[in-house]
Amino acid sequence: MEADVRLKNTGLRGVKVADTKISYIDGENGILIYRGYRIEELAVRSSFMEIAFLLLEGTLPTKAELEQFNRNIVAARQVPDFVYDALKHLPKTASPMDVLQATVPLLGLADPELEVETKEANHRKATRLIGRVPVVIAAWHRIRNGEEPLPSDNTLPHAANFLWQLSGRKPDEEMARDLDICLVLHADHTFNASTFACREVVSTQAHMYAGVSAGVGALSGSLHGGANARVMEMLAEVEAQVKSEDDVAAWVKERLGRGKKIMGMGHAVYKTIDPRSTILKRMSQELGRKTGHENWYRLLTKIDEVAEKEFAGLGKANIKSNVDFYSGSVYSMMGIPIDLMTPVFAISRVAGWCAHIIEEKFAEAQGKPALYRPAAEYVGDYCGPIGCTFEPLEERKSASV
Amino acid sequence: MEADVRLKNTGLRGVKVADTKISYIDGENGILIYRGYRIEELAVRSSFMEIAFLLLEGTLPTKAELEQFNRNIVAARQVPDFVYDALKHLPKTASPMDVLQATVPLLGLADPELEVETKEANHRKATRLIGRVPVVIAAWHRIRNGEEPLPSDNTLPHAANFLWQLSGRKPDEEMARDLDICLVLHADHTFNASTFACREVVSTQAHMYAGVSAGVGALSGSLHGGANARVMEMLAEVEAQVKSEDDVAAWVKERLGRGKKIMGMGHAVYKTIDPRSTILKRMSQELGRKTGHENWYRLLTKIDEVAEKEFAGLGKANIKSNVDFYSGSVYSMMGIPIDLMTPVFAISRVAGWCAHIIEEKFAEAQGKPALYRPAAEYVGDYCGPIGCTFEPLEERKSASV
Repeated sequence: MEADVRLKNTGLRGVKVADTKISYIDGENGILIYRGYRIEELAVRSSFMEIAFLLLEGTLPTKAELEQFNRNIVAARQVPDFVYDALKHLPKTASPMDVLQATVPLLGLADPELEVETKEANHRKATRLIGRVPVVIAAWHRIRNGEEPLPSDNTLPHAANFLWQLSGRKPDEEMARDLDICLVLHADHTFNASTFACREVVSTQAHMYAGVSAGVGALSGSLHGGANARVMEMLAEVEAQVKSEDDVAAWVKERLGRGKKIMGMGHAVYKTIDPRSTILKRMSQELGRKTGHENWYRLLTKIDEVAEKEFAGLGKANIKSNVDFYSGSVYSMMGIPIDLMTPVFAISRVAGWCAHIIEEKFAEAQGKPALYRPAAEYVGDYCGPIGCTFEPLEERKSASV
Repeated sequence: MEADVRLKNTGLRGVKVADTKISYIDGENGILIYRGYRIEELAVRSSFMEIAFLLLEGTLPTKAELEQFNRNIVAARQVPDFVYDALKHLPKTASPMDVLQATVPLLGLADPELEVETKEANHRKATRLIGRVPVVIAAWHRIRNGEEPLPSDNTLPHAANFLWQLSGRKPDEEMARDLDICLVLHADHTFNASTFACREVVSTQAHMYAGVSAGVGALSGSLHGGANARVMEMLAEVEAQVKSEDDVAAWVKERLGRGKKIMGMGHAVYKTIDPRSTILKRMSQELGRKTGHENWYRLLTKIDEVAEKEFAGLGKANIKSNVDFYSGSVYSMMGIPIDLMTPVFAISRVAGWCAHIIEEKFAEAQGKPALYRPAAEYVGDYCGPIGCTFEPLEERKSASV
């Protein structure tokens, strides 16, 4: 039986399209959980390697499991030469997200199990993807700057090795740990646009790499992964235009008065503070102190505070800072260029994408989602059952005349 | 206000997620229209170039418009060298769909207007994509066979030039015309899985190439674009196992008895014959006569006939042949290898994808779809408001013990 449900132009907001065991958001209360665990606890007590394992396997790893998982991730850092060769042939001006979307299918070509569709093989593919995405991003950054990609340092954990492969400098331990926390915070977020794109693509029985490449494409959009970079552009504008902190309020009011958005504020799902924002705000403050960029933190908190009040005054009580509001400043303090911020998001979210792809492919029979194939309301020409009159080419007149 | 609608595990079947003016399916009556015109009429009286224009612009072109559009498509056949260089570095065993998914973002890097998001620039991007997708597929086929890609023959129309760039032989005119009809038939089909993937990706404000690459990924799945190739595998099995046409019935019954599918039969939307199937069936018969492959046509019609009756006997009255049932035989008779059949689908569908991407990006304000961000029913662990107890690594016991 076919439903005839009109939900058009709502972006499917609030429509439960499948079951999931991976993550859960309570938007009213500002709660995010991965596999039952609160994000606040995971951010403090866990690591991205544990989280990737948790999302994929459903349980936190034992010590032995974590060691094995980590060995697999480290082994995956060896990216085949043809991928580097292909990267070296690209225009140096290419956006890192476009390069990543192109490279993910190439990583698929390098996967000996690409066409093997067992659950176990999909878990191994996920490990390879999680291991390789940061290597590719760092390699592209070096290649576009005319430098050779660096070999991985296999003594370094995931986030630290990325910073090493990016810059060729051994990262500060605390900073690497902060980046690891950022990866924990961004690893999953239920059926966001990129995750749904992954699930949509593999619902056709396409392989994991086809799905993840689509996820990268969706994440590249400025309404999704691109938001933190836009916060940084906004921050630069404020820094340039505002003489003192007191002028921030005027700047915010003027911007809202022109009907413009404050980037990094408001969320489709959270009706209160995004719990990830709270953690990133603290990190921005601490790193600001350490790196001498306390001004960014001060300006951001001021914008945050003023904008929230202004929105409330406009009757929008729930517009608060989201995950993107403070993360850009954090990444900047770590030396990550603005156009690598969305790729860093991908380094983390690839864990969630892979977990969702596996769930989509291997849900138990009764909970098995079908291929996503929605309908649309046809509002175009319709000339009755025999259709519009087809005029031969020679007799047509331009509609634009 | 957030809806709380549970449609889980229905694949959004019948759920109208947006308005569209591009195409319409009346599944009950087997009607497919593009912009108001019946597919049967377009197949006989139109050409793929006209259809690409129609889907993108909303009206059939005048003679002058068609000539200009065709010039733009022909100009787009010049693919930048770095794309060929990148292709030459890939493993020769790579699946053409994987290569295409990787190459579409590279074509984006070659587009001087990649980041320009006006409606006009998106129309020009669409022209470039429609012109270049067949060139890339033909080039990859030659590269994987150790041959140099061929330059396009700009005196040849779209389908004929593809056959030329693929094989280096001037195609038979009638055969090229038949391929052009196949492209007309496959150019759009409302909100199918790949088109919805395109729309999902660009709903984040990602660019057209990011969307089309995702569409290629979705089309690569065996439940979507891969079906005609699987019909050909089935046909090869029948040819090998069946001595006479009379044995076909036994083969079909035996297969259905084992609970297996008949590839290319049944459709999520059509409850009667797929109108495209009727046209392709006739084409399979005619080309069969011409190329000496009438046996394929005879076997297919027999399978079609028996399977339809058998399904009806099982209480499934509406399982009829779909667009994929006869198209594989048609492509084989044209000399198109089985693993290029889904890429040929992409050569056509890219027109629909681009039209839908433009519609998604530029729908009038009141009909503007929002970013697609559905919800899910969380059925995983939930340990109350403070979450599950986080055990330190050293204390964890393996769940699998």
